[in-house]
Amino acid sequence: MALKLYGVGMSTCTARVLACAEEKNAEYELVPVNLGAGEHKQPSFLSKNPFGQIPALEDGDLTLFESRSITRYLATKYSDKGSDLLRLNNLKEAAIVNTWVEVESQHFNPAISPIFYQRVIVPAFFQGTPDEKAVEDAVVNLEKVLDLYEERLSKTKYLAGDFYSLADLHHLPYTYYVMKTPEAKCFNSRPHVKAWWEAISTRPAFKKVAENMTLAG
Amino acid sequence: MALKLYGVGMSTCTARVLACAEEKNAEYELVPVNLGAGEHKQPSFLSKNPFGQIPALEDGDLTLFESRSITRYLATKYSDKGSDLLRLNNLKEAAIVNTWVEVESQHFNPAISPIFYQRVIVPAFFQGTPDEKAVEDAVVNLEKVLDLYEERLSKTKYLAGDFYSLADLHHLPYTYYVMKTPEAKCFNSRPHVKAWWEAISTRPAFKKVAENMTLAG
Ligand SMILES: N[C@@H](CCC(=O)N[C@@H](CS)C(=O)NCC(=O)O)C(=O)O
Ligand SMILES: N[C@@H](CCC(=O)N[C@@H](CS)C(=O)NCC(=O)O)C(=O)O
Repeated sequence: MALKLYGVGMSTCTARVLACAEEKNAEYELVPVNLGAGEHKQPSFLSKNPFGQIPALEDGDLTLFESRSITRYLATKYSDKGSDLLRLNNLKEAAIVNTWVEVESQHFNPAISPIFYQRVIVPAFFQGTPDEKAVEDAVVNLEKVLDLYEERLSKTKYLAGDFYSLADLHHLPYTYYVMKTPEAKCFNSRPHVKAWWEAISTRPAFKKVAENMTLAG
Repeated sequence: MALKLYGVGMSTCTARVLACAEEKNAEYELVPVNLGAGEHKQPSFLSKNPFGQIPALEDGDLTLFESRSITRYLATKYSDKGSDLLRLNNLKEAAIVNTWVEVESQHFNPAISPIFYQRVIVPAFFQGTPDEKAVEDAVVNLEKVLDLYEERLSKTKYLAGDFYSLADLHHLPYTYYVMKTPEAKCFNSRPHVKAWWEAISTRPAFKKVAENMTLAG
């Protein structure tokens, strides 16, 4: 039975899961959730994710939410299929993957989110103009993180080592959108970060997902 | 060879790892880092964690940072010892644990951190008085999260099911300190949350760790 992923292809958190499902060649059905109509705050969706956010996953009688827990589930369930995203057979490599998974979640994501919000969400959904001060503050935080990435990526091709992992994959959706804004310069001005971005964003699995990421032009 | 954990027993993020190490009866040495003297921003510590924050772990030639990745490592390495914190032998249970691990990281921690900061850090380190508006805003967010916990914990004894897991454990340090502040009422006014807190905070492993959590008094 195919997995059912509840979400929207252009949403960052849904795209994170889709990128993982595609790397794994997992069979899935994307079930659209109408955010505009508030479907994610209705009882039938809240029974899948009480926090009322996309994405959510159903696999038979198992229901999961939180994009990073869904990717971990897929990478574990399909550990023998497609790319080895968690290095489950190597305790030390797995630990390093998990460290950089946490770096994305604790450092990178809080730094890049406000840029995405101001540059992409505010114009697209609120017909507003970005708060440039909020963008500037976020850029300061993002550049601190990317300086450390530049250092790291001068030693290994990917964040956790010389192999692509879930740690890299989790960066795809927000970065993809921000690369369409003036803040792309944060990435492009750092040669190892730029090469890393080129390597991870051109993977066939993600290119397929990116086709539907149409929030920013 | 014993694990070396770099950190400070009264720090929340160090205590998260200590609570896990104690549950696992792991042998470790706690190596103090003098935050007051800025030791965490010196090259020898930055080589362990480039982000310049405690805790960091050394296990032979492996160096890890980020408290939640270290707990995951310990729970995996010592999967056969002490409490089964990740349910690695059960794909579905493990996935539910990971979902609630993410809930702590994405929802609970951002909501409770400002309360901890204002009520504990500001008086202890800046001889200041808490910004009551910041506390109030954080309480609104925390109560939204705790309403969902109350609902969840009316069905299962712990967050991921009727077993103690890493998802519960990750909540210990911040909650422990906030329970010494007026905002303890957020927890105590919700009966299932209150019972859950009593169950997890009285575990011998955590009681030992809490002895050194002397920031608030
Ligand atoms: N931490 C969650 C965040 C999910 C999230 O923020 N989803 C957004 C779309 S990308 C959403 O549902 N927004 C609607 C809302 O929060 O009401 C995850 O990683 O899955
Ligand atoms: N996400 C990190 C946060 C670590 C953290 O914030 N550590 C604090 C002590 S609890 C610290 O080192 N603060 C000093 C600083 O940031 O300069 C983790 O979970 O390990």
